[in-house]
Amino acid sequence: VQTIFVILMLGSVLVSSSAAEPRQLNLMPMPASVQLQTGQLVIDPSLTVGISGHTDVQLQRALERFLNNLRRQTGMTPLDMKVTSAAQAKLVVHCEHENKAVQELGEDESYSLEVSTAGAKLDAVTALGIMRGLETFLQLVQTTSDGFAVPAIAIHDKPRFPWRGLMIDVSRHFIPLDVLKRNLDGMAAVKLNVFHWHLSDNQGFRVESKKFPRLTEMGSDGLFYTQDEVRELIAYAHDRGIRVVPEFDMPGHSTAWFVGYPELASGPGPYEIERKWGVFDPAMDPTHERTYKFLDSFIGEMAQLFPDQYFHIGGDEVNGKQWDANPKIQAFMRAHGLKTNQDLQAYFNTRVQTIVSKHGKTMVGWDEILRPDLPKDIVVQSWRGQDSLAAATRQGYRGILSYGYYLDLNWPASRHYGVDPMSDGAANLTPEEKQRILGGEACMWSEYVAPENIDSRIWPRMAAIAERLWSPQNVTDVTSMYERLQNVSRWLDWLGLTHNSSYGPMLRRIAGSNDISALRTFADVVEPVKDYTREEIAAVEATSLSPLNRVIDAVRPESETARHFSDLVNALEANQGSSAQQEIRTLLTRWRDNQSNLQPLETQSFLLQEISPLSQDLSTVATIGLQALDYIDRGERAPEAWATEQFALLEQAQKPKAQLLLMIVPSVQKLVEASSGVKAPQLPPQK
Amino acid sequence: VQTIFVILMLGSVLVSSSAAEPRQLNLMPMPASVQLQTGQLVIDPSLTVGISGHTDVQLQRALERFLNNLRRQTGMTPLDMKVTSAAQAKLVVHCEHENKAVQELGEDESYSLEVSTAGAKLDAVTALGIMRGLETFLQLVQTTSDGFAVPAIAIHDKPRFPWRGLMIDVSRHFIPLDVLKRNLDGMAAVKLNVFHWHLSDNQGFRVESKKFPRLTEMGSDGLFYTQDEVRELIAYAHDRGIRVVPEFDMPGHSTAWFVGYPELASGPGPYEIERKWGVFDPAMDPTHERTYKFLDSFIGEMAQLFPDQYFHIGGDEVNGKQWDANPKIQAFMRAHGLKTNQDLQAYFNTRVQTIVSKHGKTMVGWDEILRPDLPKDIVVQSWRGQDSLAAATRQGYRGILSYGYYLDLNWPASRHYGVDPMSDGAANLTPEEKQRILGGEACMWSEYVAPENIDSRIWPRMAAIAERLWSPQNVTDVTSMYERLQNVSRWLDWLGLTHNSSYGPMLRRIAGSNDISALRTFADVVEPVKDYTREEIAAVEATSLSPLNRVIDAVRPESETARHFSDLVNALEANQGSSAQQEIRTLLTRWRDNQSNLQPLETQSFLLQEISPLSQDLSTVATIGLQALDYIDRGERAPEAWATEQFALLEQAQKPKAQLLLMIVPSVQKLVEASSGVKAPQLPPQK
Repeated sequence: VQTIFVILMLGSVLVSSSAAEPRQLNLMPMPASVQLQTGQLVIDPSLTVGISGHTDVQLQRALERFLNNLRRQTGMTPLDMKVTSAAQAKLVVHCEHENKAVQELGEDESYSLEVSTAGAKLDAVTALGIMRGLETFLQLVQTTSDGFAVPAIAIHDKPRFPWRGLMIDVSRHFIPLDVLKRNLDGMAAVKLNVFHWHLSDNQGFRVESKKFPRLTEMGSDGLFYTQDEVRELIAYAHDRGIRVVPEFDMPGHSTAWFVGYPELASGPGPYEIERKWGVFDPAMDPTHERTYKFLDSFIGEMAQLFPDQYFHIGGDEVNGKQWDANPKIQAFMRAHGLKTNQDLQAYFNTRVQTIVSKHGKTMVGWDEILRPDLPKDIVVQSWRGQDSLAAATRQGYRGILSYGYYLDLNWPASRHYGVDPMSDGAANLTPEEKQRILGGEACMWSEYVAPENIDSRIWPRMAAIAERLWSPQNVTDVTSMYERLQNVSRWLDWLGLTHNSSYGPMLRRIAGSNDISALRTFADVVEPVKDYTREEIAAVEATSLSPLNRVIDAVRPESETARHFSDLVNALEANQGSSAQQEIRTLLTRWRDNQSNLQPLETQSFLLQEISPLSQDLSTVATIGLQALDYIDRGERAPEAWATEQFALLEQAQKPKAQLLLMIVPSVQKLVEASSGVKAPQLPPQK
Repeated sequence: VQTIFVILMLGSVLVSSSAAEPRQLNLMPMPASVQLQTGQLVIDPSLTVGISGHTDVQLQRALERFLNNLRRQTGMTPLDMKVTSAAQAKLVVHCEHENKAVQELGEDESYSLEVSTAGAKLDAVTALGIMRGLETFLQLVQTTSDGFAVPAIAIHDKPRFPWRGLMIDVSRHFIPLDVLKRNLDGMAAVKLNVFHWHLSDNQGFRVESKKFPRLTEMGSDGLFYTQDEVRELIAYAHDRGIRVVPEFDMPGHSTAWFVGYPELASGPGPYEIERKWGVFDPAMDPTHERTYKFLDSFIGEMAQLFPDQYFHIGGDEVNGKQWDANPKIQAFMRAHGLKTNQDLQAYFNTRVQTIVSKHGKTMVGWDEILRPDLPKDIVVQSWRGQDSLAAATRQGYRGILSYGYYLDLNWPASRHYGVDPMSDGAANLTPEEKQRILGGEACMWSEYVAPENIDSRIWPRMAAIAERLWSPQNVTDVTSMYERLQNVSRWLDWLGLTHNSSYGPMLRRIAGSNDISALRTFADVVEPVKDYTREEIAAVEATSLSPLNRVIDAVRPESETARHFSDLVNALEANQGSSAQQEIRTLLTRWRDNQSNLQPLETQSFLLQEISPLSQDLSTVATIGLQALDYIDRGERAPEAWATEQFALLEQAQKPKAQLLLMIVPSVQKLVEASSGVKAPQLPPQK
């Protein structure tokens, strides 16, 4: 086999198929080292897979799952593609030894995959590495002129960070087990290895406790996981090489505990499950021994249920109002020399850490828990940023980054992709300090997600973050990332993720009609407002009772169409294009005319009424773009007065309406600039 | 409440919403009686449901399921829309008494549903009727300008036939439990009440037997249901008011039994699981007592496992070759005066009937079992037609019709819809004889279906057959049926059926690309060949090992686009239209240009290569249509010679290629006729 070229950490990996049509490898995350060779291994019903070296049940299940996924991906039947002896197999899997019974942080996940025209060999130290390599193999399968095939290739791969996670908040909206399972499938596909399960918050307590049954009886609306279900999910994750870290948020974010156990709180009850979003006053009473007695018993029970070494106690956003208002707590603080609420929380954390440690676990908490009196083995999860993370590591603590990875803020994938745990404050750490940065976790806070749309909030953007945490630091080409991301997104359909498939049905519900072409044209170019703007500009305060059936709930966090349009306008500016110009005109014409197609639907659906002004804006903005294009076409300079007028209109169209943003405005502004030579005033950021 | 108009069994039911936009009710099957009134009941998060009268666990679960479906349909949360006391409820469900523990043939399924602006009331004798009525309520929910709403309405409904079924063959391709469950959800949605489970055939034995474990150990490739899974599915069906009738096909269609138990066969073994399709020689030995001993034991076990009163023994398509070749069998026939193989099979059936009866069950079998010496309580399932069915009823037997309802033949919904169990030979029966026609069953034989595409073969056409079996005989308007069918089809997405959602991913796999617009344009206007043509013209014989990933496996059995195009051409002919003419031109232009968009993809996918000739035909046919349209536009008569030439081209394009049919050919032929005044030769039927 002749190595034709070597690509190491390149943004764009192209392979020349036998039909001489260059194709991009869908690999995401990009492996540490990829050597592409000539030829390909055909994948047909006769494919066989065998295990040499160590074998065990977990590995065999991984192989069965791999074959099932491969069959699904290629449309083959359960009778095709068999497991055989290694001697006869086309794909030979060689594993040196078994995984730990309970998956550990830092276990070896490296693998080597060599594919030739004759066969393939996957080597790894552990079954974990084999699983990662099998996912790479699946991503390599392409439809070619000669059948399904994997290109001849040599890959040597290992993760950059040992902690690569996704947190899902199942408290604010309950997320059923099957939805979590399909998301674990997605996680495994992009080589994530930690599922952080945010199991309690003000809006619901979601795990059955045998010792304290009122936690779910009174604090969950009947929406919780039984202990059997928890075990089922942990086994499901374990099979996919994913650790499950439970979080029980304390002492704040804990109203749901108090509905059944008001004696834990710092203020008088009774309590009700919180229906609103935000930070609330109720907090555990850190001054009362019964609090610790309860937590000792509860954490003991949960430490048994959740086998992972790490145990997350939350610890964020305590506003301290209940503590301020409670004379006994104030007296306790004075008696113990605790000057501030932060001091009181530190006291609480120290006590809780002792309990967690007693039950054999290592404590994890959000930034706020960090106080130098805690032992050095705890892990800090930073929502505040790399500086905060760096500060922790300088004090000898280990940390993971979540700042920059909040999926609920509706940022574009490129923005998440640009956040590196080792950048900013962390860039200047010593090598030893850097070792303490374990990785990162994306966070899916669930104020505005339901089983129906949670996948579309997580995927495909999660895959870009997964690449950041797995691939070498210098894999940063955004263009390549987006090309691969689109492929991976469609490919994830085979795993049953619904980020693509739920879009049409949600739009049909909104339209009250099967004909959603006009609504889709609109929905394709808008995005939900960013950050916490949805709360800030809400006409009616949203609660956990609010239906999530509006246009904002259906549209994607990032508009592929608007990004494509932006690329076209950039190509036009760079003089690359009459074909770009033609496509720009086609798109702008469709957008200009869309309002007249959408308007008739508005009379038949209450869910469409709110988008009418923004739909009108789309028409206006497209008209501006077409006028600019006409000037450019005629080689005529657009008058300055005209340009100024358009800039003002564009600034209006840039503002959120119905909590939606029209994403083509900046590109149309560029067209006006290009047509007039007038520099536009800077538009306010879209958020 | 003023009744504004009464519609009784009308094809088209329109409701005037408050926004003065007429909307069609999605009801399917059409109820026996519908009275539409003014106003509507708003469905919002505050909706409450309560039970008055009889209540039990099955009813409560039905109500929970109803609310979950309603929440899904409207995008509401689990915290919205509660069950309350009947006194407080907006929707009051009143049930007189409980269902039978084991659902019986002919149990009362009638219901009345009255909806006013203030609330709704659903009355039924049994929980079965309540379930049917709840499905009607769900279908009535519309998106309106004032919110989700159900129109004020009075419905009195009951089924025409007591046996309304769907048979799924899980032998030729194994269909996993979750796929069956979602299809049971679909069945319940259109008020079907029998799931006929074809559990054994030459290609696989699919149910665990504790008494005869080799049936699945050796006869299933490991693809079978455990008895626990069978019980789980039966409970799932029971909750939805669906009986489960098992079928174990004998004495033919039974190779899979013989792999583990060759002594049951009439010829020497050993046997292997059959991989091909068709009718095969192996048949049970009807002359050996050990056969009946085995069957007594086996049927005894299965009679316990399946609670339904009816037990299907197949009995179809015995070719008799093994019997002819076995001297002992021949001797037995002579000794017992059995002149023909049919006589021998009748002897077998009589023996088996005695066994089935001994275990408390009533025997069901295909046409072939019918012989006057069998007791009158058996049920004949007719794949041969209404004449065969009528003959059975004249002899005093009860029967169900499956002829005309074979979903695997890829007929259009209208053709299935036109098949009435009481027509043809059955039309002249006496009232008493007619009583013996219990209903019908659609059949999903599974040579060419996998979990991925089975839904698209069953739905939405199944809903048209469901209407035939539920609604009054004079509900026959095909136009109305298709309008409602399209709505119901999209609405079934909420139940998790994948007939719509699997189309895009399958096409992307075929294209090996995310950009499937050209492939979809093509796929939207072709259909799989009909009847058994797929076998007849196959270049390579298909087996159970053949991947089902070709274009024929992805395209729908019935092209909505071609039907719409046909409607447009008919409108044009009827002079109804310049708008029709414009749309015809747009479609034809897209089709003409499609080949040049599709061709580049062909070099990158082996799965696209076979459609190249038909894609070329699409372009040719569309060009012909455009030329005809040009003549019509210019008010010029097309030359006869030109027309004759086009007719010859169209006849070529009418022929199947890649086992696909181009469905726009007949409409383009009409355009050529209209443009030239030349009557076209009759095209061969597309099949």
